[in-house]
Amino acid sequence: MRIGRDLNQLVDMLEAFLRNQREKRLHYSELSKIFIRLRKLDKEKFLEYIKRMPSKDLGDILLSLSENVLEEALEALSVKKLVSTIKRLESDDATDLLQDIEDIDEELAAEILEGLDYKEQEEIQLLKSYEEDQAGAYMQTEVFVASDSETVKETIERFRILKVNGELENVSSVFITGDYKNLVATISLEDIILFDLNNSFKELIIKSPEKYKPRYVRDVDDIEDVAKLFREYDLSAIPVVDDHGYLLGRITMDDIYDIVQEIATEQIYNFAGVDEDVETGKIVLNVSRNRGKWQFLNMCTAFFAASVIGRFQGTIEGLPALAVLMPIVASMGGNTGNQALTVMVRQLAVGDVDNSNWLQSLVKEILVAVMNGFIFAVLVASGSYMWFKNFKISIIMGIAILVNFAIAGLCGTMIPLFLKKMNTDPAVGSSILLTMITDALGFFIFLGMAKIFIY
Amino acid sequence: MRIGRDLNQLVDMLEAFLRNQREKRLHYSELSKIFIRLRKLDKEKFLEYIKRMPSKDLGDILLSLSENVLEEALEALSVKKLVSTIKRLESDDATDLLQDIEDIDEELAAEILEGLDYKEQEEIQLLKSYEEDQAGAYMQTEVFVASDSETVKETIERFRILKVNGELENVSSVFITGDYKNLVATISLEDIILFDLNNSFKELIIKSPEKYKPRYVRDVDDIEDVAKLFREYDLSAIPVVDDHGYLLGRITMDDIYDIVQEIATEQIYNFAGVDEDVETGKIVLNVSRNRGKWQFLNMCTAFFAASVIGRFQGTIEGLPALAVLMPIVASMGGNTGNQALTVMVRQLAVGDVDNSNWLQSLVKEILVAVMNGFIFAVLVASGSYMWFKNFKISIIMGIAILVNFAIAGLCGTMIPLFLKKMNTDPAVGSSILLTMITDALGFFIFLGMAKIFIY
Repeated sequence: MRIGRDLNQLVDMLEAFLRNQREKRLHYSELSKIFIRLRKLDKEKFLEYIKRMPSKDLGDILLSLSENVLEEALEALSVKKLVSTIKRLESDDATDLLQDIEDIDEELAAEILEGLDYKEQEEIQLLKSYEEDQAGAYMQTEVFVASDSETVKETIERFRILKVNGELENVSSVFITGDYKNLVATISLEDIILFDLNNSFKELIIKSPEKYKPRYVRDVDDIEDVAKLFREYDLSAIPVVDDHGYLLGRITMDDIYDIVQEIATEQIYNFAGVDEDVETGKIVLNVSRNRGKWQFLNMCTAFFAASVIGRFQGTIEGLPALAVLMPIVASMGGNTGNQALTVMVRQLAVGDVDNSNWLQSLVKEILVAVMNGFIFAVLVASGSYMWFKNFKISIIMGIAILVNFAIAGLCGTMIPLFLKKMNTDPAVGSSILLTMITDALGFFIFLGMAKIFIY
Repeated sequence: MRIGRDLNQLVDMLEAFLRNQREKRLHYSELSKIFIRLRKLDKEKFLEYIKRMPSKDLGDILLSLSENVLEEALEALSVKKLVSTIKRLESDDATDLLQDIEDIDEELAAEILEGLDYKEQEEIQLLKSYEEDQAGAYMQTEVFVASDSETVKETIERFRILKVNGELENVSSVFITGDYKNLVATISLEDIILFDLNNSFKELIIKSPEKYKPRYVRDVDDIEDVAKLFREYDLSAIPVVDDHGYLLGRITMDDIYDIVQEIATEQIYNFAGVDEDVETGKIVLNVSRNRGKWQFLNMCTAFFAASVIGRFQGTIEGLPALAVLMPIVASMGGNTGNQALTVMVRQLAVGDVDNSNWLQSLVKEILVAVMNGFIFAVLVASGSYMWFKNFKISIIMGIAILVNFAIAGLCGTMIPLFLKKMNTDPAVGSSILLTMITDALGFFIFLGMAKIFIY
């Protein structure tokens, strides 16, 4: 839906929403957009409506605010309201919001935590205990569970009550647990709707145990692997268990959309030598420091490439045209190598290239590099000739381009494969390493041949 | 699950699968992995089991094969078997497989198409008629629809029969249509399970029309926008309608996982000047040609940067140390600019930066660039002094680094913003444009100052 840009329109929408809460005319993502726009137009009105929002909707809105705006909102809200807001969120969102609050005001976060029930505190502590890349950090502890001795009818009745009280959302399957609260089956609503109501789940499961065998992940599993599982098996949710098979919670597809996107962002950033976590933070000094690390590495490799030129100062002094042309060899080699590198890194990441077919990719890349190397060798040699009218330099330029293309194709493919083999991320640092090689070798081949054949 | 590596293990698994088809012990993604591995170990066995697979499982396996292997499989299968295989696939998968077959053997694809019912042919023609980026190209025409005059009981009974016959999968909601087959509501199974069985849907919808108001997309909508909708509203499926509101099909979350990933790949590739469609194809010549386009552009910008050096040939001739050091200025500026560019392009893509807050990002980027510019100006100047013991050159080097960092930060931020404003993809070509600026200006500032202050 389109959100009005006008202050009056926004206020009208919020008033209508507050009047007709039961009808839930606005999705939380729309409400969030309204508040973000409202804040830009009128801070006072923004704070007024933040205070008037019911707890059940406020949490999602607060989660969507940027750090600065959230800080303003927190100042306007009472601890009591914040406690009731956190209580209405699902556990994973509650944990995220409390974390955001803690980043702004540790004391306030502690006060809110104290206001929660013991069980809620425990859940949040559990979720906070996981590392950022572990499945447990993404799960919500709210799941609809039925014991295997329960009948379908009893379960549906329980489900009805939870739904009416608004305590359940996005349920696509029921997790069935056995005598020791261990997960024994996952049954989708599609199947439940067709069951005989008077049967217990145990009786139904025994008829076709394979069909209901639960697919699950461990709380300590890598979240990237979980995302792969969602894609491979077209899941909309998956239960999370601990190492005793005890059901802890579930991960739903809305987290997975975010994770797939985050993985991609991380990869894009890794290429350029920037860190995703640091960049999304607000502290400029951290950004500088983090990017500086890679700039430092780049400085070292640039000095190394320069040292190659340094060996040919005499050659350049006699023929400054060489200094003019040499960056073309380096630049084009770098560009070609980066194309191969990018394709390789991405195909390794999405699993299109693996142990079994990397040789095919290598052959393809070298073929492409050599084919285009020939074409651009001719073009660049011609261009150089038109410019400097020096036949020898042009031939050397052409050969240097061809050789540097081949090296670029080879290194652009091999560097990520090598880094993968070493169990490090093929994206991190590979571009700087590649550029060092194509620069240094580009200068060396071009100036080296010039030294031999022109003098 | 882990798939055995050993030929005998693979054969055992397939034999067990063929014996116990009803229990469906293997998910299609596992079956596909088995067949891909089997092909690598033993072509004859691979073809034998491809022929023995039942039609209902064969389609998903064929869809997972690479073009070469699919070609071998097609030769081993009869047209009749292929027709029955296509019939068992959902319409979107059927269209994809037929397209893959057409790419290998047009005549065979035509024969298979003729073997299908008129209605199936029509569906496939419809899906094929959409552009690659349109929602219609990703939908499946199989949806579970109920008329609003039907009772819940009748609908569940119909659902049961379809499920038993294996004609329905992954149903999370029922689409309700009105008198003219127009979509009037979407009701999730969560709600249906709680309804009074004897009510008609019309009676239920009238009680809270807002709640069941269907969220839908048009068949011609951009698939990237559809993916955004899935993320924003945590959807697991969405109905697709034509411009008269007539229900055509649905898009499910498994397509969206793929699309989010593809969008990310496209963006990564766009940065490097490679084309996703071409790269996933097998034709090396197309890859060469496509990459060559960007290499050509890079050649032009490299010549331009070289022409800047060309204006200072006299300066370099007198002091070849300048030729040694100048690539350092260019390289470090390019690296810095690319960091800013990458962050900007990605944040524009995921919506973190927009019209309202781009100025903030610009300020941040320039701040980061200038801060690090100072630090690296000192480092590089010191390094240069230790190397050449020339105070003037070192000072000039430091100033050039600082200025080029600032320019890199500015251009790295502004180029994507400008391209976005021009409604083109901020990733495409921006890196080459940026490098041209940091190279050419880097050379110009460094050599220009050298010319003025040293001579």
